[in-house]
Amino acid sequence: MRVPFETMAAEFTRVLRKLPFAPDRAETAARLFAEASRDGVYSHGLNRFPAFVDHVRRGIVDPHAEPRLVQALGSLEQWDGRRGPGNLNARFSMARAIEIARGGMVGCVALRNTNHWMRAGSYGWQAAEAGCIGVGWTNTIPNMPPWGARAPRVGNNPLFFAVPRAEGHVVLDMAMSLFSYGKLGTYRLRGEQLPFEGGYDERGELTRDPSAISKTWRPLPVGYWKGSGLSLVLDMAAAILSGGIATWQFEKTVETGASQVFIAFDASRLGADYVQRVAKDIIDDFHQAEPAKPGEQVYYPGERTLLTRRESMEQGVLVEEAIWRKVVMEL
Amino acid sequence: MRVPFETMAAEFTRVLRKLPFAPDRAETAARLFAEASRDGVYSHGLNRFPAFVDHVRRGIVDPHAEPRLVQALGSLEQWDGRRGPGNLNARFSMARAIEIARGGMVGCVALRNTNHWMRAGSYGWQAAEAGCIGVGWTNTIPNMPPWGARAPRVGNNPLFFAVPRAEGHVVLDMAMSLFSYGKLGTYRLRGEQLPFEGGYDERGELTRDPSAISKTWRPLPVGYWKGSGLSLVLDMAAAILSGGIATWQFEKTVETGASQVFIAFDASRLGADYVQRVAKDIIDDFHQAEPAKPGEQVYYPGERTLLTRRESMEQGVLVEEAIWRKVVMEL
Repeated sequence: MRVPFETMAAEFTRVLRKLPFAPDRAETAARLFAEASRDGVYSHGLNRFPAFVDHVRRGIVDPHAEPRLVQALGSLEQWDGRRGPGNLNARFSMARAIEIARGGMVGCVALRNTNHWMRAGSYGWQAAEAGCIGVGWTNTIPNMPPWGARAPRVGNNPLFFAVPRAEGHVVLDMAMSLFSYGKLGTYRLRGEQLPFEGGYDERGELTRDPSAISKTWRPLPVGYWKGSGLSLVLDMAAAILSGGIATWQFEKTVETGASQVFIAFDASRLGADYVQRVAKDIIDDFHQAEPAKPGEQVYYPGERTLLTRRESMEQGVLVEEAIWRKVVMEL
Repeated sequence: MRVPFETMAAEFTRVLRKLPFAPDRAETAARLFAEASRDGVYSHGLNRFPAFVDHVRRGIVDPHAEPRLVQALGSLEQWDGRRGPGNLNARFSMARAIEIARGGMVGCVALRNTNHWMRAGSYGWQAAEAGCIGVGWTNTIPNMPPWGARAPRVGNNPLFFAVPRAEGHVVLDMAMSLFSYGKLGTYRLRGEQLPFEGGYDERGELTRDPSAISKTWRPLPVGYWKGSGLSLVLDMAAAILSGGIATWQFEKTVETGASQVFIAFDASRLGADYVQRVAKDIIDDFHQAEPAKPGEQVYYPGERTLLTRRESMEQGVLVEEAIWRKVVMEL
């Protein structure tokens, strides 16, 4: 089933207004959810929306809380997210990092005490739209075993890294587990197996079954020991720079209070023409890659996003009918 | 065979002086090579030293060239490495990034036109020693196929990410290929197979044979599509921010002229006690991880480095005897 993008955004706005979100905040948050589905990240769009509403109702997310400056230290500012909506806090923080970068080329916001930011890539697209290279990450509850360990103790700490390009921004959005929990859910909903072994089942065997991995909480880190290590340093940097909690300090039952980092490099100051040419040349070369399997295509990060986005805008956004009905009828 | 650390450093200094390197530059470069071997990164220590000397003799590396400021843009500075020694240029750039960070909390140096920086982790240790969180990366020649492609077109673009910790810094040093070429060489020298399939052989089959992968230049990216994507954005950011070349622009025959990024966050400004406590608590929790295989241990990035370092300082640095002889007798 497909739903027009504007219908979806309006519906989310309606629900958020009831919670109540202030009008402009409802609209921005709604749009971030709708854009995630529009771009094919269903797990953090419509599919996540009911859980978000539930978190607001249970008081985990404070719809009125806005970030407050803790201290400004030159190119880096610490902000307290005050357990407000994670996507609004993150969008604010990236915008502020961009503002700082307009002054001194590099801007960094370290945000503590926030909530799940939903789609990591959102803030990469935001930076690239502003002509900036944008990098950021969040910590999470312990949801991945460090390499060599049996049980979860590090987070899968999603990272985004975006580079502006006139013909389509290059936006990487990656969790430190080979498959994010959102992606596991997407495969599960479709009744599909993973294309690669993505973690361990209850017997401790590597498996391609997304449900088994969601049950054990033992996904494989990206590149085994490498993703495990990267996850750890991302957590350390987020906690240290923001003054917020680290993965080990999250409450066990609900993911709230996360620490995040947003960095903008104002590439536009180097000359928009220059940046566009460099980005274009690199991707033009990349597109000359010969596919390993004839007939397939080699995509840069964000390339398929734009294809999905166009399809969504032309034909409507793909939805899980049951979830869409729930939002329309029950929320 | 083992060689005392100071003997190795002195020997490297002697050889570099003959090229000629200025005394202090010879000593610093020699120490960086010796420290790589001391810390167990043999591929970029002694084992690489003869090739480095060869590059200087062939005029690829200019022993006298020092970085020159291109433009200062607030927290970010562009420097031209003038094809000087890659390790000296990198060490200079990290030091300069740290200096900038002392002022405004974040410092970034984007370095163009430099040479191979040898061990990536060196500059992470350097930042952490200075009480900073240090992040940096380099681009390389096309030495890895993008995910889904047959032939190399992206670099394996090594990245370091270091966090200071009183009991031992946490230093991640990772190429975007599951196994770096240095690591493939180390396994090959030992006559060992890789612990995981690390790339493709000449028949296009996944293999654990390090020689086969070095021949095809088809290593697997870390996390398949994820490491491939990360590699691409690291190259784009390095080329854009430094004004230097991207992976596709390298000469085909020799890796020279690389673009690199060095970022320092002056964590010490947040209070040394505070940073030490956060880092300690995170690693203390990490150390409680139960190993998947009884009797094994779960290590944080950099932990084994310190074990190797201690062993090297107590018993001497492990060397490939043939290479050590070559340095002592022939260089």
